[in-house]
Amino acid sequence: MEREHFSRQFDAELNDIREKLLEMGGKVELMIANALLALVERNTELAVQTIAFDHEINRLEMEIDEKCLEVLARRQPAARDLRFITLALKIVTDLERIGDQCANIAKRVKELNLEPALKPYIDLPRMAQAASTMVKEALDAFVRGDENLAIKVCQDDQVVDDLNEQIQRELLTFMMSDPSAITRAMRINYISKCLERIADHATNVAEMVIFMVKGKDIRHTIA
Amino acid sequence: MEREHFSRQFDAELNDIREKLLEMGGKVELMIANALLALVERNTELAVQTIAFDHEINRLEMEIDEKCLEVLARRQPAARDLRFITLALKIVTDLERIGDQCANIAKRVKELNLEPALKPYIDLPRMAQAASTMVKEALDAFVRGDENLAIKVCQDDQVVDDLNEQIQRELLTFMMSDPSAITRAMRINYISKCLERIADHATNVAEMVIFMVKGKDIRHTIA
Repeated sequence: MEREHFSRQFDAELNDIREKLLEMGGKVELMIANALLALVERNTELAVQTIAFDHEINRLEMEIDEKCLEVLARRQPAARDLRFITLALKIVTDLERIGDQCANIAKRVKELNLEPALKPYIDLPRMAQAASTMVKEALDAFVRGDENLAIKVCQDDQVVDDLNEQIQRELLTFMMSDPSAITRAMRINYISKCLERIADHATNVAEMVIFMVKGKDIRHTIA
Repeated sequence: MEREHFSRQFDAELNDIREKLLEMGGKVELMIANALLALVERNTELAVQTIAFDHEINRLEMEIDEKCLEVLARRQPAARDLRFITLALKIVTDLERIGDQCANIAKRVKELNLEPALKPYIDLPRMAQAASTMVKEALDAFVRGDENLAIKVCQDDQVVDDLNEQIQRELLTFMMSDPSAITRAMRINYISKCLERIADHATNVAEMVIFMVKGKDIRHTIA
């Protein structure tokens, strides 16, 4: 009976970590969406809000870290639960850095909004959408222990990489034909790389999930 | 007596993690040095070796992760030791990603070596040296629990950021005056950003060390 109570409590604690991580993931997705909306609609106010919102992501990182440490210290979990918590600790770092990337995008948006638009943005929003879906699915794969979904995320990384390369080639053409466009092109290039890094973080998370599910390490072998 | 034996064994295990992390740190420093040497001396063979060496870093990441999980599962450490191990888990991820950045630098070096040199490299090696010292000192701060050294690392990040901005301004001038230099300038720009990211990883580690030493979270407050 005592034991059962302990176990229910423990489950509730693990569930709490799971939910906080999903909450953080949802907020990170919102940041990606807002950073891109600020770009496409040339909305500097939204860019400023997105930069400020990074504090909320940072706060959640610290909160989840503390929760994980508490559970490790008090419950001394083994095997699968231990893997779950230690991976939660790593994943939260990736989510926090995705937040940093969104803030970096928003900073470039602020600068871009001070100059005339270089061209309409088509591929960057597509890339952001793909990266955001990867973040969502990587977290879903984590909380559900869904290996197949994690594998899909790893594969989707190629889509984002391809879009990034395409955007970079296009920007290079712009810069070569019009040196006055170089500064703006460099900023857009930077945003494209931020999105690529966001997708990389999602891929890192997905690789760790496969590791968790399989109980052995497939990182660095499926690339 | 039994207890003392347990404690000595446990100390030996923590020490093993410590030493493996320092070994990984030393290898990452070597990668930074080699990637830059390959750039400055236009040594494509060394660039290729540096890219291949990333596997060794990845192997160490998995090895240290496993060791940490083992110790958590078998020893069920509390308080300070628990913090040490969970931070080791996070730090190893940063070190692995520094290895990725070195491989990325080496890939650009291979491409740059196919074209005539744009200009002698002065600031990039200085930046690499500064970033590499940050990595070394962040790890030293971790294994010694040295808060002051960790604070120094956080402060040194500004030096690398300043060098990165200076290099970017300079490359912009190059590109504007000579469109045929744009592709090379973009590659050098990419290398500069990789070094900046390496310094960011070192700063992340240092912030986590201050967190460990103080037992409370100063991340996101000293920036």
